[in-house]
Amino acid sequence: MTAARYDVIGIGNAIVDVIARADDDFLVKHKMTKSSMSLIDEPRAEAIYAAMGPATEISGGSAANTIAGVASFGGNAAFVGTIKDDTLGGVFAHDIRAAGVSFKVAPLKSGPSTARSYILVTPDGERTMNTYLGAAQLLSENEIDEREIADAKILYMEGYLWDPQDAKNAFLKAAKIAHQANRAVSLTLSDAFCVDRYRREFLELIKGGTIDLLFANEAELKSLYETADFDTALLELHRDAKFAVVTRSEKGAVVVSRESVEAVPAFPVKSIVDSTGAGDLFAAGFLYGFARGLPHVTSAKLGALAAAEVISHLGARPERKLSDLAKENGLL
Amino acid sequence: MTAARYDVIGIGNAIVDVIARADDDFLVKHKMTKSSMSLIDEPRAEAIYAAMGPATEISGGSAANTIAGVASFGGNAAFVGTIKDDTLGGVFAHDIRAAGVSFKVAPLKSGPSTARSYILVTPDGERTMNTYLGAAQLLSENEIDEREIADAKILYMEGYLWDPQDAKNAFLKAAKIAHQANRAVSLTLSDAFCVDRYRREFLELIKGGTIDLLFANEAELKSLYETADFDTALLELHRDAKFAVVTRSEKGAVVVSRESVEAVPAFPVKSIVDSTGAGDLFAAGFLYGFARGLPHVTSAKLGALAAAEVISHLGARPERKLSDLAKENGLL
Repeated sequence: MTAARYDVIGIGNAIVDVIARADDDFLVKHKMTKSSMSLIDEPRAEAIYAAMGPATEISGGSAANTIAGVASFGGNAAFVGTIKDDTLGGVFAHDIRAAGVSFKVAPLKSGPSTARSYILVTPDGERTMNTYLGAAQLLSENEIDEREIADAKILYMEGYLWDPQDAKNAFLKAAKIAHQANRAVSLTLSDAFCVDRYRREFLELIKGGTIDLLFANEAELKSLYETADFDTALLELHRDAKFAVVTRSEKGAVVVSRESVEAVPAFPVKSIVDSTGAGDLFAAGFLYGFARGLPHVTSAKLGALAAAEVISHLGARPERKLSDLAKENGLL
Repeated sequence: MTAARYDVIGIGNAIVDVIARADDDFLVKHKMTKSSMSLIDEPRAEAIYAAMGPATEISGGSAANTIAGVASFGGNAAFVGTIKDDTLGGVFAHDIRAAGVSFKVAPLKSGPSTARSYILVTPDGERTMNTYLGAAQLLSENEIDEREIADAKILYMEGYLWDPQDAKNAFLKAAKIAHQANRAVSLTLSDAFCVDRYRREFLELIKGGTIDLLFANEAELKSLYETADFDTALLELHRDAKFAVVTRSEKGAVVVSRESVEAVPAFPVKSIVDSTGAGDLFAAGFLYGFARGLPHVTSAKLGALAAAEVISHLGARPERKLSDLAKENGLL
């Protein structure tokens, strides 16, 4: 890849996570689908917050978590997403900048408040997300700065961008700019239900060549190809995608290129405290390695390492410096 | 003790903690005294926040942490402290109520914003706190509800209340109401520097019989009696106080009554992630046991258990239900 200011620029929903522990009965009582992300409106947000236990506020957002992870590996990274000029917007902006990420989007002065995701973590470490998109849904083509996009080796975007009205256009504009500048365009499928909402469009993006590097987990991949059989889905992916990485929780990851399909084991974890951000941080490690031209298997190991770090504590942003962790484990 | 609606009612500064990891150089560069609590104004708060790393927001406040802990043990608990009608005030109110604590103070419509403590956690797990008191300093006698105070077996207050102008009067009014209702009055000395600021007054409260149950850690006790020798300080405390508990980190705790001095070991901890709240949660366990008429040594063990739980993760509120933890360890 030619020289660039950024290793990765990410576009996604700018969200602050409001995380509380809950038992499975709570999910049933409040009609939540375990381990999925649901979009909620403000009254539902208020009702969930009132019912949930003592919470912790930590910056989140899928692509934002990934980008913070890339920076933690020592990568040069930028993020694009919309916040309001309110307390949680200030928290989001502080945290992503403090993580060493370039974040240039000006906060909105009016309109809905900064996005929040109410995340219930069950005793098994699984997370169930209820997202009020608020200001995040106002992301549009206006926020896409051509020079910024063209100056990143990889453009990384989340499937969740298909949910807000105008974000899809921002996505497509950014992808076009990136390709014109000979950059790689990457997408994460985000969530099996998100795939279910936009299957046809995602398949078009993948088959049509808009996506150079696809991230998916096992559930998302099965949803994409509407099959319960992983191997069937993998075969279809191998045929459709230029390059893809499929994460399989404790079963590790599979790197799928035109030439080969390689499996990489998961990194051992003592106990899973909160699985929020596992996929986001896997992507961070892989993207960092990919941008720096490391072998794919090494990149996948960096991803597995970052995922293991983030699930060992509450919240979806790394608590330890990932470059240090990678050095300790002989990966960098 | 006669029947009461609450086991413990706490009065203290209502604070949201903004917690980030930092190295020792950061503390030196920003002229912070390690492991202490400093009061800061708004410009200093902004400067520290801008300089500090990605943060986590978790409700805090010393007495508020203790009261949340009492509720987590299954105790009936109430808290009194002032917040503003803003985002962080909403976070504080949600979290303490979600912990099962009665919190009836109405948020202030104007004036300074809800208090925040910027907490830097160094790699050794020590925390250095920078507190902007904001709305918390507006706590006054007006917030002291006579019936509420009289209806709690124990009134618990933090030494930090000596910092805001009017809170001291609220403290003294509450103590008077409690004693008139034959309730116990308890104080934690909060911080060695806080003791240094108000030594004479704290000694008067202890010697004069206003305080029935005193909590202090080793550094605070030494500061109180201006000695570097723990045994000397303990001897003076034994002479002055009706009843006291001194915590000594990994050395455990000492329960000091008129009749005896008993040592209780610390509860083993795998690794100290963040020492914030260790003293607060020790007090929670002891107060719960004390209110329920358990033997002092059992109460101290409950304290040690709760302290061990809270230092094993980020933040000063328990993540596990302490009554469950106590049962698992054969203490309840």
